[in-house]
Amino acid sequence: MNYNFSDKVTGLQASAIREILKFTSLPQVISFAAGNPAPEAFPSAAIAEISAKIMRDNPVAALQYSITEGYMPLRETMRKRLAGQGCYNPDIDDVIITSGGQQGNELSCKVLLNEHETLICEAPSFTGSLTSFKSYNVNLAGVPMEDDGMDLQFLENVLKTASRPKIIYTIPNFQNPTGICMSLAKRKKLYELACRYNVIILEDNPYGEIRFEGENIPTIKSLDTEGRVIYVGSFSKVIAPGLRVGFVSAPKEIVQKIVVCKQVADVHTNIFAQMIADEFVNNYNFDEHLNRIRDIYRKKCHLMLGELEKNIPASVSFTRPEGGLFLWGTLPEQINMPAFCKTAVENNVAVVPGSAFLIDESTPINSFRMNYSTPSDANIIKGCAILGQVIKEKF
Amino acid sequence: MNYNFSDKVTGLQASAIREILKFTSLPQVISFAAGNPAPEAFPSAAIAEISAKIMRDNPVAALQYSITEGYMPLRETMRKRLAGQGCYNPDIDDVIITSGGQQGNELSCKVLLNEHETLICEAPSFTGSLTSFKSYNVNLAGVPMEDDGMDLQFLENVLKTASRPKIIYTIPNFQNPTGICMSLAKRKKLYELACRYNVIILEDNPYGEIRFEGENIPTIKSLDTEGRVIYVGSFSKVIAPGLRVGFVSAPKEIVQKIVVCKQVADVHTNIFAQMIADEFVNNYNFDEHLNRIRDIYRKKCHLMLGELEKNIPASVSFTRPEGGLFLWGTLPEQINMPAFCKTAVENNVAVVPGSAFLIDESTPINSFRMNYSTPSDANIIKGCAILGQVIKEKF
Repeated sequence: MNYNFSDKVTGLQASAIREILKFTSLPQVISFAAGNPAPEAFPSAAIAEISAKIMRDNPVAALQYSITEGYMPLRETMRKRLAGQGCYNPDIDDVIITSGGQQGNELSCKVLLNEHETLICEAPSFTGSLTSFKSYNVNLAGVPMEDDGMDLQFLENVLKTASRPKIIYTIPNFQNPTGICMSLAKRKKLYELACRYNVIILEDNPYGEIRFEGENIPTIKSLDTEGRVIYVGSFSKVIAPGLRVGFVSAPKEIVQKIVVCKQVADVHTNIFAQMIADEFVNNYNFDEHLNRIRDIYRKKCHLMLGELEKNIPASVSFTRPEGGLFLWGTLPEQINMPAFCKTAVENNVAVVPGSAFLIDESTPINSFRMNYSTPSDANIIKGCAILGQVIKEKF
Repeated sequence: MNYNFSDKVTGLQASAIREILKFTSLPQVISFAAGNPAPEAFPSAAIAEISAKIMRDNPVAALQYSITEGYMPLRETMRKRLAGQGCYNPDIDDVIITSGGQQGNELSCKVLLNEHETLICEAPSFTGSLTSFKSYNVNLAGVPMEDDGMDLQFLENVLKTASRPKIIYTIPNFQNPTGICMSLAKRKKLYELACRYNVIILEDNPYGEIRFEGENIPTIKSLDTEGRVIYVGSFSKVIAPGLRVGFVSAPKEIVQKIVVCKQVADVHTNIFAQMIADEFVNNYNFDEHLNRIRDIYRKKCHLMLGELEKNIPASVSFTRPEGGLFLWGTLPEQINMPAFCKTAVENNVAVVPGSAFLIDESTPINSFRMNYSTPSDANIIKGCAILGQVIKEKF
């Protein structure tokens, strides 16, 4: 039979990343296209120990239905941790545990936006979030990125002209895909604009704890005096993504609506995983663990940047991230980006075309994303050499 | 600040069940209001053993990002199991693993229905699903239940008159809340009607494996020659709900759309839990385990029915379920149901008012739901005696 899908999903398609990722399953392909944390960053031994302890001491709690808001000790742990990290001091009712940060972003859009209302995002931005917003049939308006974050003049113009703007979505720390960190001055100005135009800021911060250089910059949430910032965090990059545990901290009125929508989406997040995360954060030297994974990513990032400098002509520029998993390359005008990505993968190195991170993938863009967290050191060296050869010989 | 929520969620509220459940946290209250599997039905020792094995042999696979479609061995396990249970033989691409059955129901609605199109459901039906559908701002049309399932004449009338009906949602086995099982004749007729009026059937079957009496009845999916049945299954009642693992089997065109929506909802289901479920189903005598939990529920159901018969006047009728977790009581006209539920909880026994399971909770109904899987045997005996006293003394 023919299926009549909803208007919301008719236009949704597997992203360009997925097409590239098909090639990365070939054993000879070196992938700089993934977004996976380094497996050596997983605290596997600790998780094995904690799992055994939970299953020995408390199996029924880990296996029974639980409340939608999340495992109470973990909510309290994250409440305290957020309070300890800056001037933001949430109540317990301002915190909900979600099935990864992704669910926090998705449900924030669902509870706030009607179809055809506008969500403003960085351009480029994280494909998963953009598709999530599209799946609610909202308008997306992109704001170009500068070296220190969103172009705020452009943003103000969008706020003035867009049809019912309601949310500004931003990844202020080590943004996916660009690796850019928003300056404190821009965070303050962004918050002022949100107040002036009465919109909500959706602050997605999966990489904030993986700053491996430079000084911490306060979260936008810590500037929030009016209750207009939804803060989304995740354990995917600091413990392990397979657990699918994240959290949202927001005004309790918003959290209550997210709770209702989460209840009907998946009832609650896997409770065993929530208990594992709580135990690990509290009793396994979490801050030391973070330092260890920051060391891993600093080394990998520096290795990749060094190899790129050695092999790639200076006409190709790269961001120099101070944290996170990604850097962003921009080709000189005379090199065609899609042709470059295609030739690279034919030569067994995969990068992600920058168009994958745009609202409309057909918009011209001359950049591409590279990931340094997943490949081995040997493959970083080999892959960068191949990219250098590709550029020198084919373009 | 004042928050402008989306129209979809403005009207959503915590259900009447939640209000009742508040009382059930009081230690003196005997709760027949829950829907939790019996903790003694959890294969805790096996899960402890399997968890340790996975963390020892394969920690990175259990902790890394995985594909949205689900853990391939588990998809294959469920594909084979579905094929083994009847005439339905899905391809692997017809199966997706979800975060509980709830996610399967929610995403089926999301991919198929626009706002203001109609989803037809049983009346009463499972609150969680109804709220999930409401959260997409679709019209719900209820079809009254008879002893052998939906009133199909009523259904046909709804199909003729409703505004753009697209889905019929049914829980054919041991329905929540009534415990009713749909007859084979009605399943066939329901499928014919779906074909005639060109709608999809959403067959939600969380309790099908917990038949403890009578003969198995083929699933509606097994009658599906046209690819118009979405079958939703769950491990919550047969392994453990805390794991949040379920599955959907549907035509691959529909599965593909569910995959895109699941990817942007939670990326994938907790992979550790998927690996646990797969290992348990394949290598831990799953069919023996099912027999063991059927024994538990048969005994508990019979105990409750016997105690009700002993204590409650015959003017109150109860369904006699052949499986599942619930039975459904109906009061004689002269007893006011909300007053009865209120007096019961004041006397420390909680049941769920039948209105909680209606599309519009203000519709008059004289029934209530009782759960026999969660309370201990002693509490079943004590609670039924109290209900008897309440009816005899206060009504």
